[in-house]
Amino acid sequence: MMQNSYFFIGGEHGAWRVRSLSAYRGETLPVTATLDVQPATATAPQGAFVLRGLISNIRYAHRSEVVMLRNRQAPLNRLHACHAALIPITKSSAWWELAQDERRAIFEETSHHTAIGSEYLPAVARRLYHCRDLGEPFDFLTWFEYAPEDEAAFNALVARLRATQEWTFVTREVDIRLERA
Amino acid sequence: MMQNSYFFIGGEHGAWRVRSLSAYRGETLPVTATLDVQPATATAPQGAFVLRGLISNIRYAHRSEVVMLRNRQAPLNRLHACHAALIPITKSSAWWELAQDERRAIFEETSHHTAIGSEYLPAVARRLYHCRDLGEPFDFLTWFEYAPEDEAAFNALVARLRATQEWTFVTREVDIRLERA
Repeated sequence: MMQNSYFFIGGEHGAWRVRSLSAYRGETLPVTATLDVQPATATAPQGAFVLRGLISNIRYAHRSEVVMLRNRQAPLNRLHACHAALIPITKSSAWWELAQDERRAIFEETSHHTAIGSEYLPAVARRLYHCRDLGEPFDFLTWFEYAPEDEAAFNALVARLRATQEWTFVTREVDIRLERA
Repeated sequence: MMQNSYFFIGGEHGAWRVRSLSAYRGETLPVTATLDVQPATATAPQGAFVLRGLISNIRYAHRSEVVMLRNRQAPLNRLHACHAALIPITKSSAWWELAQDERRAIFEETSHHTAIGSEYLPAVARRLYHCRDLGEPFDFLTWFEYAPEDEAAFNALVARLRATQEWTFVTREVDIRLERA
């Protein structure tokens, strides 16, 4: 099976309790009691929804940004960061048909995606899972972990990104807020 | 099953007869009589080897390069282009750990990958299949079609690319030459 590949399983038993689940744009997902994250196996598990994503190479960040992020960012699984968010996102075919320099320019030079995100480090830990090439319904599964007292900051981060030009290419987005069960 | 995903099946019956198969770098593949290319299905077919790759978005080309390529390149399946090459390639972890600007700079500004390739258009038609994120043994399956009289030009193209800095990151490469069965 694929390395670095994970299932995100909406169900009744899991490591994360669902605090809220709603569509920000497009079709929603079923509301479930819990979310579980497991290494992917050949056979998909049962669940009200099962999403799959994998960790891949960097697609936009320049070396200077990679160094900055690595210096500032926190790891996942911090004890005090008991809140999490899973935000699956799909972008339009117009986005995917852009050339690399066009996507990079919108992503960073215009929308300041990395620059905005870096303002919320190390409070918000993050990981990006790719799934467009897996034939999944979403292009990305974005995952964040933070302490309850940083929820307002996380909300501000999400709102700022949704106000960017990059987000005009987002066709579907579901916002799932979680806490450790 | 995944859209845009294909099996490359080495066996005894297939649309392409294997003229030669040899490793340029690293481990080879079994020599087979034929190669067949089929849309991928949930169950992998039988074969001495079965590789899987998918067509994905552009990773390095800038808009000016995309326009130039689209203006010059030929489609696959031209009747006179009865020779083909399947060249599966794996790059090192050092390559994949580079930032986007570093990989782009090596790919084009230093190694002139697109610029070199464009000199052989429209004689050599090409398609790139991605497979690193699928957990496959290769990162890419590169596919080329050309007329028999363009074989020397194709050999020159391959030799020029293998002499680039980009190719110092190639850890495994198998060169399979084909003709329509």
